[in-house]
Amino acid sequence: MTASLAVSDPVGTHRVLEPVGALPQTARRLDTRRDLWPDEVRVRVERLNLDAASFRQLHDKHGGDGDAVRAEVLAIVAERGKMQNPVTGSGGMLIGTVEEVGPESTLGLVAGQRVATLVSLTLTPLVIEDGLSGWDGRSEQVPAAGYAILFGRSIAAALPEDLPSGLGLAVMDVCGAPALTRRVVDGYAQPVVAVVGGAGKSGSLSLAAARRAGASRTIGVVPHEGEAALLRAAGLADDVVVADARDPLALRDAVEAAGGPADVTVVCVDVPGCEPGAILATAPRGTVIFFSMATSFSAAALGAEGVAADVQMLIGNGYVPGHADYALDLVRSVAGVRRIFEDRL
Amino acid sequence: MTASLAVSDPVGTHRVLEPVGALPQTARRLDTRRDLWPDEVRVRVERLNLDAASFRQLHDKHGGDGDAVRAEVLAIVAERGKMQNPVTGSGGMLIGTVEEVGPESTLGLVAGQRVATLVSLTLTPLVIEDGLSGWDGRSEQVPAAGYAILFGRSIAAALPEDLPSGLGLAVMDVCGAPALTRRVVDGYAQPVVAVVGGAGKSGSLSLAAARRAGASRTIGVVPHEGEAALLRAAGLADDVVVADARDPLALRDAVEAAGGPADVTVVCVDVPGCEPGAILATAPRGTVIFFSMATSFSAAALGAEGVAADVQMLIGNGYVPGHADYALDLVRSVAGVRRIFEDRL
Repeated sequence: MTASLAVSDPVGTHRVLEPVGALPQTARRLDTRRDLWPDEVRVRVERLNLDAASFRQLHDKHGGDGDAVRAEVLAIVAERGKMQNPVTGSGGMLIGTVEEVGPESTLGLVAGQRVATLVSLTLTPLVIEDGLSGWDGRSEQVPAAGYAILFGRSIAAALPEDLPSGLGLAVMDVCGAPALTRRVVDGYAQPVVAVVGGAGKSGSLSLAAARRAGASRTIGVVPHEGEAALLRAAGLADDVVVADARDPLALRDAVEAAGGPADVTVVCVDVPGCEPGAILATAPRGTVIFFSMATSFSAAALGAEGVAADVQMLIGNGYVPGHADYALDLVRSVAGVRRIFEDRL
Repeated sequence: MTASLAVSDPVGTHRVLEPVGALPQTARRLDTRRDLWPDEVRVRVERLNLDAASFRQLHDKHGGDGDAVRAEVLAIVAERGKMQNPVTGSGGMLIGTVEEVGPESTLGLVAGQRVATLVSLTLTPLVIEDGLSGWDGRSEQVPAAGYAILFGRSIAAALPEDLPSGLGLAVMDVCGAPALTRRVVDGYAQPVVAVVGGAGKSGSLSLAAARRAGASRTIGVVPHEGEAALLRAAGLADDVVVADARDPLALRDAVEAAGGPADVTVVCVDVPGCEPGAILATAPRGTVIFFSMATSFSAAALGAEGVAADVQMLIGNGYVPGHADYALDLVRSVAGVRRIFEDRL
């Protein structure tokens, strides 16, 4: 017992090959050995779900050439022992079946269970065994055969049996957004909430969470009329406005015209440059929650200071206790959210 | 009046040359024309204070060659019309004397007043006229002759007459840190507060702010014994511990041994890679405030998720109303803070 504790740490540092002492998420290379430390779990992989910002970067880099995208994903995983896009720094998640549970694991999993891992692929030891032959390189959802390792302190959730697995995975991938939105909205009295990227997956869930948590008004911001129609049909926002979130004054003015500024602004679009507009669209003592992996820390910090904006800015933490159950509940009970997810699968 | 409002925006977009529509902070190039729009102010520059992360990057890139550092700063300002380090994205601030005040300015400044600009150099139109001939390129404090422009919505504070100008500038440069620390500490009942980089300028102010705001215990984390001695002598922390903040488990264990985990962890060191350790050193439902411009958004977001850490993570906003007065008050009234600042000038 003492010996095993000495060689494995719940956060997975024992799997880091380089640099020594790093956490798995920041490591360059992980040890993907099949054998488990006593507190680990091995999962047989069925499907990867790449982070939207990561997939977009790969897609754009290769001009939409699916074979080239697939080759790069395979190269990254082979070299690093995990799927972490070297440009965006982001990963994604996976679903699979529990293959083996170490005797000291505390995750509560049993062999044969179908699960989604709720920790990022950026820190999950991963081996791909089928060359991703079932994937055309043109979508974020990647059928894959291979195995992945979960550490002692990790998160995995059983896939809901009442939802198709693609839908369940897509919901869990963004389940941190509605949970954190709920918590922040709870801290205000009847706030105005604007969600930038409101017609997307995390955006639609965040809008539904904001309304349920007592927002006095919800505003969905979308980039063009097609998305606006989708979001209006879903009925998730009191107002839907079209604006380019990368244009600070346009975003500020659009939210203001819809009943803003917002007390809570939630950024859910995976394009760079939305920080200044989100800050300007937010009222003094309001909060901006950044969920997009394309967010720049310095652009946000300096952007707020530069316009003397007294707003609280949160780095969207993908983990909030109970997040998966809460998001699944929203998808089951709010028809508009489910419609948006099904439209985007 | 209508004509002038049509051509200048309080946030300064009228000075952006490219890309059109961007805010000055994210712009590649600013218009540095000497003539003022009606709501602007021109300041005669006396001294620049480069952001610590920016100066360190330049210093390291050129191996400590001061002439090369000076040449690069001049080239950046000439090309971009502002001092924004292209690698770190950060700038700094300046002091000078108000030269001309536009008739519609609402900043409350008068010609002849000595001021510090509290908005970043990354968004401040700047012209250097003396080739920085009075600077050896070896310190963050840069004597300079030239002019800078303040926009309608901007922040500048009169330099305190009871403090040397170098000290006043250094305090104002980091004055957002203690103000935000106070606000966050106020939100907890007698929290344990850890400040990573506690012997630095923003760190010492944050420790003093935390104690004054009711922290039950303050822990200063420093990288080596020399800094520990400095911080112990200053008497700002209940406990001083030596740990490499880039080593996640070392930081976690050091804070825990000193009475942690922390309810509030404040990161004030300008080196990359401190996110995972700060997260692991923080208790569930605690808050991490990142003030370092070396912070990586994705490392923080994925780092917290990856270890299932239910912590709130704040992007340190350099603007909190009253921040300059509060920081100056701490420097005047807490001898240990003043000693650390004087030691570091």
